[in-house]
Amino acid sequence: LRIILVGFGTVGQSLARIIHKDRERIVDDYGFDPQITTIVDSRGYCQDKNGLDLAAALEAKERLGTVAKYPEKGRRRPTASRIISTSEGEVVVESTPSNFKDGEPGLSNIKQALTTGKHVVTVNKGPLALAMPALLELANHKKLQLRFSGTVGGGTPFLSFASKCLPGEKILGVHGVLNGTTNYILTRMENSSLGFQAALREAQMKGYAETDSSNDVQGFDTAAKIVIIANLIINRRLNLHDVEITGISKVTPQSLRDAKASGAKIKLIGRISESKATVKPEEISATDPICVPDTLNALTFSTEHAGNVTLIGKGAGGEQTGSAILRDLVDIRGRYTI
Amino acid sequence: LRIILVGFGTVGQSLARIIHKDRERIVDDYGFDPQITTIVDSRGYCQDKNGLDLAAALEAKERLGTVAKYPEKGRRRPTASRIISTSEGEVVVESTPSNFKDGEPGLSNIKQALTTGKHVVTVNKGPLALAMPALLELANHKKLQLRFSGTVGGGTPFLSFASKCLPGEKILGVHGVLNGTTNYILTRMENSSLGFQAALREAQMKGYAETDSSNDVQGFDTAAKIVIIANLIINRRLNLHDVEITGISKVTPQSLRDAKASGAKIKLIGRISESKATVKPEEISATDPICVPDTLNALTFSTEHAGNVTLIGKGAGGEQTGSAILRDLVDIRGRYTI
Repeated sequence: LRIILVGFGTVGQSLARIIHKDRERIVDDYGFDPQITTIVDSRGYCQDKNGLDLAAALEAKERLGTVAKYPEKGRRRPTASRIISTSEGEVVVESTPSNFKDGEPGLSNIKQALTTGKHVVTVNKGPLALAMPALLELANHKKLQLRFSGTVGGGTPFLSFASKCLPGEKILGVHGVLNGTTNYILTRMENSSLGFQAALREAQMKGYAETDSSNDVQGFDTAAKIVIIANLIINRRLNLHDVEITGISKVTPQSLRDAKASGAKIKLIGRISESKATVKPEEISATDPICVPDTLNALTFSTEHAGNVTLIGKGAGGEQTGSAILRDLVDIRGRYTI
Repeated sequence: LRIILVGFGTVGQSLARIIHKDRERIVDDYGFDPQITTIVDSRGYCQDKNGLDLAAALEAKERLGTVAKYPEKGRRRPTASRIISTSEGEVVVESTPSNFKDGEPGLSNIKQALTTGKHVVTVNKGPLALAMPALLELANHKKLQLRFSGTVGGGTPFLSFASKCLPGEKILGVHGVLNGTTNYILTRMENSSLGFQAALREAQMKGYAETDSSNDVQGFDTAAKIVIIANLIINRRLNLHDVEITGISKVTPQSLRDAKASGAKIKLIGRISESKATVKPEEISATDPICVPDTLNALTFSTEHAGNVTLIGKGAGGEQTGSAILRDLVDIRGRYTI
């Protein structure tokens, strides 16, 4: 299986590290040998038909800032989409940063990959949030796989749960906490009476929030996950513009205290009901299973026969997301014996 | 698929009702037509090679107390195990009451079914708690299926979750709340300062506890589920005698108040760690995901890569357990195209 890895940030590097470290186990457990033959980052790319030396690629990135400095086979200034179309490989792994305005560069990368006959594993939520129905159709039309386990829940299998563990169940709706950064901020505001800005700064200092955390705080990250769940699990053809979105920046310590006095907490809830999809701060009973603390994520599936079933786990983390990509690769390999 | 249904209490009747009501949907969705050809209860049995009239069987049971009164084809005083061995059919569904002393009559029924070449779906925890390794070996030796989705979690897929949704993950241990009756009692004792006996009576009045609820209260029901999980999910060959068991009858309102003062709750926790398996009341932080109220069940899987993942849902209910049996039947049918 030859992999073209586009985007070499935390998640891309984590995948490279897992494949480098666990190659023997992967070959033993799954019977296939994943070869990363191309890596593209924002400043360049490196390529080796026989499989890159991942230790060298990681070192070039860490020490010199770009894979363009990979020994001998590194090059500067690529256009990712040209490299995707001209490189040999069975799968493109798309891990450039999520962009919820126009989905770029991920959207073009994914289209280019599918158009030129390559399966896609993406952890980039932007293209899915904005164009998931169209991308699924393109993949379907080309008889290619478009996988995205790592976009929702990291290592917690929110997406596969419904299809694999609730067969024959109709999912009537979902609701839950899908963003660890905002959940951490709200938990800290409640427990320490910090204001929103102070709690955000603390989250940034602890590495739970990025420097630009506006996609988390304004609710776009949660909304993108809601779009992915709606399309995949509830068969509802939504995109980001169909979701009513309110972020958490106006939640005050006072409103959290008021909620607490009535046995409730305020959580940023993503929700798909019969009639609509929303992301907004909601008061939730403290004994509701989705009322999880800190950076945890939680999702309740409302089912026809089994009632409400809730899944709780870590929402993210480079290693978890890297493992999710590996699961997708294993799955694609299993279906196509590439 | 011809089914021999042994035991016709809440769960057995619920299965008959689901098949009677949803036959068309089952045929459409799964492409097979489940026929119940024999029903055995404690007082008699009824049999029709072409499939029983389930409405008539349910009416005989409800109005006259036994399927022995089924029109024309009902008979009194059977030995279940003789009927199992002499009747034609591909699957025996075992739903007699759980007995944690010697596992009977379920244990003999399951052995008889496997010995005479029939697949088994059981919702009876007694035989599994006492002899699961041996029963799995017998089924394996005979190349037959022994299924038991309905024994743990009713409609909540605790058992299939680990195998289907965490592929490639090593499960290091589990812990959680696996009995709705005791969880309801503890919740009521905490919220209303009821004593144990008063809370038990309330649970019985509301139908959350049976008249003889000693298996729940003393922890045997939870321990049986722990044994099933250990054998199936963690590949640990335990039986009931390997589990350290303490029930909830000595939990006091005062101890619950003390726990609450330190931000905790007392829950009856089943736990499998590296070294042992236990069932006992434990103090759990109120913000821990397994700290679920009322009759809910919750199980945390400690995994190597994804960290802790928790699944929460209803633990029981006739309809849910009936659906779980149907899932097992669908699965057996799929594997063997009987």
